Amino acid sequence: MDFALPQELDALKARTRAFVREEVLPFEADPRRTAHGPTDELRRDLVAKARAAGLLSAHVPREWGGLGLSHLGKAVVFEEAGYSMLGPVALNIAAPDEGNMHLLAEVASAEQKARFLAPMAAGETRSCFCMTEPHPGAGADPSLLRTTAVKDGDAFVINGLKWLITGAEGAAFAIIMARTLVDGVDVGATMFLTDLSAAGFRIVRALDTLDSSFVGGHAEVAFDDLRIPAADVLGEVGKGFRYAQVRLVPARLTHCMRWLGAARRAHDIATAYAAERQAFGGTLLSHEGVGFMLADNEIDLHTTRLAIHHACWLLDRGEKANVESSMVKVQASEAIFRVVDRSLQVLGGLGMTRDTEVERIFRDVRGFRIYDGPSEVHRWNIARKLARAATPAEPAAAGRAA
Amino acid sequence: MDFALPQELDALKARTRAFVREEVLPFEADPRRTAHGPTDELRRDLVAKARAAGLLSAHVPREWGGLGLSHLGKAVVFEEAGYSMLGPVALNIAAPDEGNMHLLAEVASAEQKARFLAPMAAGETRSCFCMTEPHPGAGADPSLLRTTAVKDGDAFVINGLKWLITGAEGAAFAIIMARTLVDGVDVGATMFLTDLSAAGFRIVRALDTLDSSFVGGHAEVAFDDLRIPAADVLGEVGKGFRYAQVRLVPARLTHCMRWLGAARRAHDIATAYAAERQAFGGTLLSHEGVGFMLADNEIDLHTTRLAIHHACWLLDRGEKANVESSMVKVQASEAIFRVVDRSLQVLGGLGMTRDTEVERIFRDVRGFRIYDGPSEVHRWNIARKLARAATPAEPAAAGRAA
Amino acid sequence: MDFALPQELDALKARTRAFVREEVLPFEADPRRTAHGPTDELRRDLVAKARAAGLLSAHVPREWGGLGLSHLGKAVVFEEAGYSMLGPVALNIAAPDEGNMHLLAEVASAEQKARFLAPMAAGETRSCFCMTEPHPGAGADPSLLRTTAVKDGDAFVINGLKWLITGAEGAAFAIIMARTLVDGVDVGATMFLTDLSAAGFRIVRALDTLDSSFVGGHAEVAFDDLRIPAADVLGEVGKGFRYAQVRLVPARLTHCMRWLGAARRAHDIATAYAAERQAFGGTLLSHEGVGFMLADNEIDLHTTRLAIHHACWLLDRGEKANVESSMVKVQASEAIFRVVDRSLQVLGGLGMTRDTEVERIFRDVRGFRIYDGPSEVHRWNIARKLARAATPAEPAAAGRAA
Amino acid sequence: MDFALPQELDALKARTRAFVREEVLPFEADPRRTAHGPTDELRRDLVAKARAAGLLSAHVPREWGGLGLSHLGKAVVFEEAGYSMLGPVALNIAAPDEGNMHLLAEVASAEQKARFLAPMAAGETRSCFCMTEPHPGAGADPSLLRTTAVKDGDAFVINGLKWLITGAEGAAFAIIMARTLVDGVDVGATMFLTDLSAAGFRIVRALDTLDSSFVGGHAEVAFDDLRIPAADVLGEVGKGFRYAQVRLVPARLTHCMRWLGAARRAHDIATAYAAERQAFGGTLLSHEGVGFMLADNEIDLHTTRLAIHHACWLLDRGEKANVESSMVKVQASEAIFRVVDRSLQVLGGLGMTRDTEVERIFRDVRGFRIYDGPSEVHRWNIARKLARAATPAEPAAAGRAA
Repeated sequence: MDFALPQELDALKARTRAFVREEVLPFEADPRRTAHGPTDELRRDLVAKARAAGLLSAHVPREWGGLGLSHLGKAVVFEEAGYSMLGPVALNIAAPDEGNMHLLAEVASAEQKARFLAPMAAGETRSCFCMTEPHPGAGADPSLLRTTAVKDGDAFVINGLKWLITGAEGAAFAIIMARTLVDGVDVGATMFLTDLSAAGFRIVRALDTLDSSFVGGHAEVAFDDLRIPAADVLGEVGKGFRYAQVRLVPARLTHCMRWLGAARRAHDIATAYAAERQAFGGTLLSHEGVGFMLADNEIDLHTTRLAIHHACWLLDRGEKANVESSMVKVQASEAIFRVVDRSLQVLGGLGMTRDTEVERIFRDVRGFRIYDGPSEVHRWNIARKLARAATPAEPAAAGRAA
Repeated sequence: MDFALPQELDALKARTRAFVREEVLPFEADPRRTAHGPTDELRRDLVAKARAAGLLSAHVPREWGGLGLSHLGKAVVFEEAGYSMLGPVALNIAAPDEGNMHLLAEVASAEQKARFLAPMAAGETRSCFCMTEPHPGAGADPSLLRTTAVKDGDAFVINGLKWLITGAEGAAFAIIMARTLVDGVDVGATMFLTDLSAAGFRIVRALDTLDSSFVGGHAEVAFDDLRIPAADVLGEVGKGFRYAQVRLVPARLTHCMRWLGAARRAHDIATAYAAERQAFGGTLLSHEGVGFMLADNEIDLHTTRLAIHHACWLLDRGEKANVESSMVKVQASEAIFRVVDRSLQVLGGLGMTRDTEVERIFRDVRGFRIYDGPSEVHRWNIARKLARAATPAEPAAAGRAA
Repeated sequence: MDFALPQELDALKARTRAFVREEVLPFEADPRRTAHGPTDELRRDLVAKARAAGLLSAHVPREWGGLGLSHLGKAVVFEEAGYSMLGPVALNIAAPDEGNMHLLAEVASAEQKARFLAPMAAGETRSCFCMTEPHPGAGADPSLLRTTAVKDGDAFVINGLKWLITGAEGAAFAIIMARTLVDGVDVGATMFLTDLSAAGFRIVRALDTLDSSFVGGHAEVAFDDLRIPAADVLGEVGKGFRYAQVRLVPARLTHCMRWLGAARRAHDIATAYAAERQAFGGTLLSHEGVGFMLADNEIDLHTTRLAIHHACWLLDRGEKANVESSMVKVQASEAIFRVVDRSLQVLGGLGMTRDTEVERIFRDVRGFRIYDGPSEVHRWNIARKLARAATPAEPAAAGRAA
Repeated sequence: MDFALPQELDALKARTRAFVREEVLPFEADPRRTAHGPTDELRRDLVAKARAAGLLSAHVPREWGGLGLSHLGKAVVFEEAGYSMLGPVALNIAAPDEGNMHLLAEVASAEQKARFLAPMAAGETRSCFCMTEPHPGAGADPSLLRTTAVKDGDAFVINGLKWLITGAEGAAFAIIMARTLVDGVDVGATMFLTDLSAAGFRIVRALDTLDSSFVGGHAEVAFDDLRIPAADVLGEVGKGFRYAQVRLVPARLTHCMRWLGAARRAHDIATAYAAERQAFGGTLLSHEGVGFMLADNEIDLHTTRLAIHHACWLLDRGEKANVESSMVKVQASEAIFRVVDRSLQVLGGLGMTRDTEVERIFRDVRGFRIYDGPSEVHRWNIARKLARAATPAEPAAAGRAA
């Protein structure tokens, strides 16, 4: 058992840290950060910096121009990137592109990789992932999927409505999840690739949201007889939910990594302020009421990092880590929210203003307890595992719990 | 002991409730709600509605055109108003005007009342309260006050910097707290009244903040040799901190009242959604993971209301209720935050969007744990009372705790 | 709305407070407090004190020798009694007798009242309530009831196993809940009255438990062909669950009242210690880390008391208050536990010892989150009310949520 | 980075696990478990089992008959041992002996090791550590030390009062911390070794405490002119506080290890029950209200284990890990308490009885948030580190924070 990072990863960590502090932090005052995220222009400026620093697309296999990092490697680099909300944008490792690149690298055909993955890995294009639907469609429960893809000759005709589609505005292409009907038979969910310029793909509106750090914001999109050739099916017809798992388990963890960096940033801002600000006869930090909050931050950040690293180690060993990733998602998203909430509290009125990054981080991390499965769904997943483990020999009981 | 509302207050509650639902809620979609609060134009439209409904300035004595409500009366009406973030604006009972009107009614001279209070009570003007200063000035610890007022003949010359000055943009006048120097001697803090049009009063910038429901937003303001005639001193020279208490204890409670209404709104939105939204084989509400959160909301709303009503009853009896109001402030601000946070969580992705009011309420109520004294200062206040009560006969101990 | 106690209740409160401090507290060092509760001898000594003070059986109608207090009256007196874990024993208002007296007063026949209620109200006898069964029988879910009563001529023959039967050891009589079979037909649950000396009533064992303040402790009891004449049915056959509600709603609240007093006691002990004990340069209480805990205690005690009084006021008005009593049960049991847990923490190592009452109170109040329905069952009850209220006529609600 | 256990440690873990389940669990029903801990006779029976299994004194250097485990090795074995509250007793790794053996191995002279350490490592004798004093003496703040050792020729004469002295009853020897006076000069605190049979060593009384798993319970002890030869000074005169750190940092962690095992036991008992117990239409575990609690247990157990292993790894690398061990102490003691509290709640009424081990574990782990420094002291320690780190170049600020 060894908690030390491999030397080369330690060096990459230091290099990423320096890059973020020197090259990315100055952009935080850039007016191109809008309520719907950084503009694409700002994104390209940031990406150019990372490209020059040799830090682009750390998670992408080397053959597609990335650094080919392991899960643990991602944990280290992504946390450093997350220290600025603009860091993941710069390094081209932000959601949803990061997860989409992973998915394409795992599932796409060679041709699809050349067409979709290559330019995205180079930081030239962006993408979106069209799964979530407004009520009464698919949300935390994917079985409610209502968007349909009807086989028509050698193509599929897609109709439906999606929302909370991160990055749709300005994306080059989309991955669409749809319930698939072949000759009137529901053959399960399928993933499709399509250019956004395709006829029938329509951005209905930009959503105003609490968070503001995803490039392109979140949109509502509609498919009106969107025609997609069979060649643009991602993987195989009917395997959409299986691929969703391929995407979601690591995507869940990469969220944890990036937001851990953001929480650390908030904590550092609050700590520096508390060490300097005087009140009631001493620094804020010398007051236990404040010092204890920051101590709890230290504990939360530390245990969250350990839990992330452990889950990455499992994935790197080839384990599925389905339940472990649920555990990390719950623990990390809630601990990170606590850290940022306490940091804002320590800052007092200053914390309510955009004069520090904490205000923005607070808004963004609130979503983390919901995105990629709300805490409640993951707790249910963990409890189901307990139910299965507790009754190994009783099929009836297993069925009841499942 | 009787928890029933007096009949006429019950009627006023019903009338306010109907007014908010019928007249105010439709304005929530109004584009004049900006990141720096509702515009003054929107405010006037809302005020006109309340004026027509006979619901304006419920807390102001009848002689100045208000409804002359008791503290308990305010608790009931303000909660109903708070059901929409625009309700307090419409009824002219929003911070900081509401507290300023209270302060003027208590402390101002007849002439000052006619000049400042009357038009504000009529909903024609707005005001701001200039106490908080940026680091290293006065924040939670008012003793750090740095703005100075130097006696010069029959006037005072004020210099200093304030921030988080709610409603400054568009206000007609300000109440300014400044450390007062007479013949080079510090005679304590004084409150001053001044028109914003006075030379030397300068709005430095609008602050971007997490919240967005205060008319005029929050500003940074500077005083550059701002000259204020001695006649515009509010009350007496050197009694600024005493008057601040006159303003803060009830203002603390009126925040609780309004935000309790807002929390109830968030809870109602979440409950209605949870009762309809299907997931994993039933409504969200039928899942204990969601139902328990909403049950906890019910408990938090209920106990918060009881605690507010109790503190109002104390004030109405003429008690100072200093510690009791601290207890309510901590309990209410934290319970209200929990309620809104849970409501957002129940809504899932929808909660992150501005498609419901919950997103805005969440941003606004976060400030409540900080405004009018962060929880930590109030807990300290409560603990000091315990220390005093525990050692009545030990002067040394009492001195140590005070 | 009026939070003031009626004058005569205020006087009774003061009298009870003085009685507990002067007459009951000295008994706390009595060696007759055993791991299975105070002995019956100790109980009789305490009851004699209360009888002499005219404070016996405050909740019992005057015709049966009690003080005939309203629910609110009980809230006030029971909290004072609870200030010592021996107080409710002295005043003859401890569980389960208190609830049993209430049930008998409401449901029993005149003859049954004379035989069972009268001597118990006089403090001469004790009783037990035999409802809970060990797994897989009736616990939080009463529908799992397995004990049976089979009609046999003009009697019922009872067989079954019960446990956690508080006060069984030494009780004069029992109320037994059993599933009732008449001519082979299950006619529902019925309550029966029986002397413990009846053949077929057997105490299997005393249970070792975390708590230790109930006279007689908790026992496992068995019914082996226990024959009960039809005249000893309590109320009507088949109405057992209805009567259980008659007993449980107020019993739930009286637990809250007594334990609120106990929590206040723990808080007082901790506060006195914190005000005197020096550490790291000041009293414990002067350290925010401790002061804030005690401040939170103050808040929890205050809101719990308000919530109890409010529910009592509802009951006194004739309302059922089923959901409100669930809310109070959850809030009070969890707040009280927090208060006692913090008090123990403030005491440090001293808190772990029986040198103060806090150690015992801590053990006892832990049960309160379970007894009379665990928090989870009450949260579920509250959530069900929300579900009912949210969907009265469906289509309207659907529109509202959409 | 590697989270896998070394193969031989994995084997030792499996062996310990099997030993505890097969050899120790049966003793849990042994009546020799008293309110003041297992009797010495029971201890010897248990130790004999571990000796036979080759599992005795895992933490002791091999030269003294132990297994010579690293800190990480202890983490693994001690957690397994803790799965039964009797496991650490059997393996001779329970507090305070375990910490005392560590201290002696580090500091004692060869002669002292032969006399005191050797028989203790062999499981033949027990010891106690006399540091804590009753109010107003040394507790969480060791600077309040009042016990004195006055140099008198070639001996020291000790007078004072200690309490919460775990294991004193039945111990062979004690380590005593006393403020040392040489020629009237206070030369600091010193540690002394003495046989309990020495004249002047007196056990005043056994303390009744919430916990009940330490052999010998906790006692109050007095030193009445206890004369200790200079040769029995442990280490050097005046270095008592330094040695206390040598003892406390690892002792803090070994508490975490053992109690983590106990928490896992409670969780397993609750999970097995929840998987079988029916209520309201399904198993308890199928209800989210219960399943979520057990899911949170899983998360708490997992993150606690990671944090312990990490701190052990630091110690094994030779780092002091003072702050890290404070972080683990806070996190572990609070997480473990939550786990056991939830487990008891899931068991309902059963949890309140001694029919499962959870009742005893609940009582014991409550002390863990206090023993070896209450959470508040450790949070303060962590906050101090933040203050030092935040102001590296400002001596004044550093002084202020210290």
